Amino acid sequence: MNTRLNSAAEQLKHRFIDFALLNSKSNVFYLSGFDCEPHERLLALFLFPDAEPFLVCPELDRERARVSGWDRDIVAYGDADDPWKKIRAALKERGIKNPERIAVEKEQLSYARAEALKKIFPSTRLVSAEENVQPIRMVKNADEVQTLTEAARLADFGVEAGLRALKTGCTEMEVIARIEYELKQKGVREMSFSTMVLFGEKSGQPHGVPGERKLKEGDFVLFDLGVIYNGYCSDITRTFVYRSVTEEQIRIYETVLQSQTAVLERCHPGTPISELDRTARGIIDGAGYGEYFPHRIGHGLGIEAHEFPSLHEKNEDLLREGMVFTVEPGIYIPELGGVRIEDDLVITADGHRTLTRFPKELQVVS
Amino acid sequence: MNTRLNSAAEQLKHRFIDFALLNSKSNVFYLSGFDCEPHERLLALFLFPDAEPFLVCPELDRERARVSGWDRDIVAYGDADDPWKKIRAALKERGIKNPERIAVEKEQLSYARAEALKKIFPSTRLVSAEENVQPIRMVKNADEVQTLTEAARLADFGVEAGLRALKTGCTEMEVIARIEYELKQKGVREMSFSTMVLFGEKSGQPHGVPGERKLKEGDFVLFDLGVIYNGYCSDITRTFVYRSVTEEQIRIYETVLQSQTAVLERCHPGTPISELDRTARGIIDGAGYGEYFPHRIGHGLGIEAHEFPSLHEKNEDLLREGMVFTVEPGIYIPELGGVRIEDDLVITADGHRTLTRFPKELQVVS
Repeated sequence: MNTRLNSAAEQLKHRFIDFALLNSKSNVFYLSGFDCEPHERLLALFLFPDAEPFLVCPELDRERARVSGWDRDIVAYGDADDPWKKIRAALKERGIKNPERIAVEKEQLSYARAEALKKIFPSTRLVSAEENVQPIRMVKNADEVQTLTEAARLADFGVEAGLRALKTGCTEMEVIARIEYELKQKGVREMSFSTMVLFGEKSGQPHGVPGERKLKEGDFVLFDLGVIYNGYCSDITRTFVYRSVTEEQIRIYETVLQSQTAVLERCHPGTPISELDRTARGIIDGAGYGEYFPHRIGHGLGIEAHEFPSLHEKNEDLLREGMVFTVEPGIYIPELGGVRIEDDLVITADGHRTLTRFPKELQVVS
Repeated sequence: MNTRLNSAAEQLKHRFIDFALLNSKSNVFYLSGFDCEPHERLLALFLFPDAEPFLVCPELDRERARVSGWDRDIVAYGDADDPWKKIRAALKERGIKNPERIAVEKEQLSYARAEALKKIFPSTRLVSAEENVQPIRMVKNADEVQTLTEAARLADFGVEAGLRALKTGCTEMEVIARIEYELKQKGVREMSFSTMVLFGEKSGQPHGVPGERKLKEGDFVLFDLGVIYNGYCSDITRTFVYRSVTEEQIRIYETVLQSQTAVLERCHPGTPISELDRTARGIIDGAGYGEYFPHRIGHGLGIEAHEFPSLHEKNEDLLREGMVFTVEPGIYIPELGGVRIEDDLVITADGHRTLTRFPKELQVVS
């Protein structure tokens, strides 16, 4: 943590920033080691170019912050307190009087909290803290990649558990219950997002909602799931066909698989991110399914299930060693159904390594 | 939905607001009927005093918005689009040129999105939309209370399932796995928050994190859980003792129960909210445990697990018919363990009705 804190403080110095207020759960965890869900309460980390950082958290969570290893100052407040009064005092102690530039997470800080800050310092300018933290967070170190690999291994296991639970007439929700039960038995505390199991025509909705649809022969079966392991997320999608398969299902599946394979081949340092999206889109367009691929090719993965980089066709940044993200082309045809194949991968010095490993050739399961 | 939309539009007129931008998942659901988790993408509802409202959502979700019953305009955007360009055009169509006052959810709108809005309308003033929607949302109608009652029934069932799963040597995570499995088998898609099962000394942390702690004789067993049912949340806490009980455990338990009972007796229209917190605190203080009750007495409950009203000692608002909230006093003693008893209730014309119904007398389970 200390290296990350120092590196963030160093950047504040370079950007002539008086202090930074970070209030996203993920950045507080990344920089302090304290993994806390504050709900509507304020959780924040204050960083300075040359002074001691402090953590702001509910009184309720003070002890857990200590246990999690945060040994710097803590400003704790009760449910009926105004945390900003205490923050003001802590800033004063650190010699902050008329700051010119305060860095905040503009995407995360609410307008109400920005107003509270501006009430204390009316003439200050709020600048983006994202550029201080995103570049550090986007490149994962070896420990983080190890944790992400474990998270991916559990996602593979979730797909296996889902396959074992399939039988004619079972519902999507029953299969989800089984997947999550088996993962929780293995000590997984939280899924990284709401588990998706979609049968038949329901797989044709990229954001379909699982329910009581019953499995029958000829259905596509789409699993999209992930876990949080030691604070880091995984995210896998696999699609199968139940008992029998049509020519059209095979054509759709093979197009998606071919598209995913082509993208993976370009996953090495130096490739423009836009090229990944365009590669996938080119193949799917070429097969005549262009209008049925309505989303970007992937997203960064780490403490959050969706983080930087965003892999869309206009992102001209280049892939760098240590980036971790998903590659997930899909084709979704209303009424008929859809296929998505998604892996998590890390960019290595000379290419990439996929973290999710469940086989991808078309399987007709029964 | 139309009544709520009309009522919100009416209020905009009274407050001389040009338009409102609502972007929280919960308010979009409340006013449009569309229950959507947009992750980092923009989801928003634009309301006008005298023009047609429109919904902004990812292209991916357009179809689901329609299916969910939203029959007004939709402004959909792709992953590589700037949604603000499309919003600007839609506003122009509705004759919005130089708005003086725009209502936004100050607690929910990010500073970055507020900046995007101010870039379009530099001289406008952002005022709080919370006061347009909170008063409507805080009072539940009969349908909402019915749904919350169903959600509470499932929470009761979750506690039963947890009790059935207890055996010497089992871990907290194993019990959670079982509770959620049984609830998902009943069609519950999502818990309303991360299920908490804490054994022994771990129950002494009000925000403890479940893990591999094994159950043994003499442990407190604390369950805190809830489900989302048709978009509405429940939240129950019950505490038991496993196999044998000490005098001190009985004293702690009875203090919490007495405190909860006393609060419930005051739950009727017209009681100041602060009185509920003070009543609970008075009894716990009187028994000598004052320093071990570090949180407010409860929180509103509805589409969100924590919503308005916040039941703390400085809230001087009065209870009103239709308010739904939790009452959850607790005593947490480090090393020894803790007890919390939490019910969900609705304020009725002449008193209240508890929605959660699991028995509360001290049970030594085995």
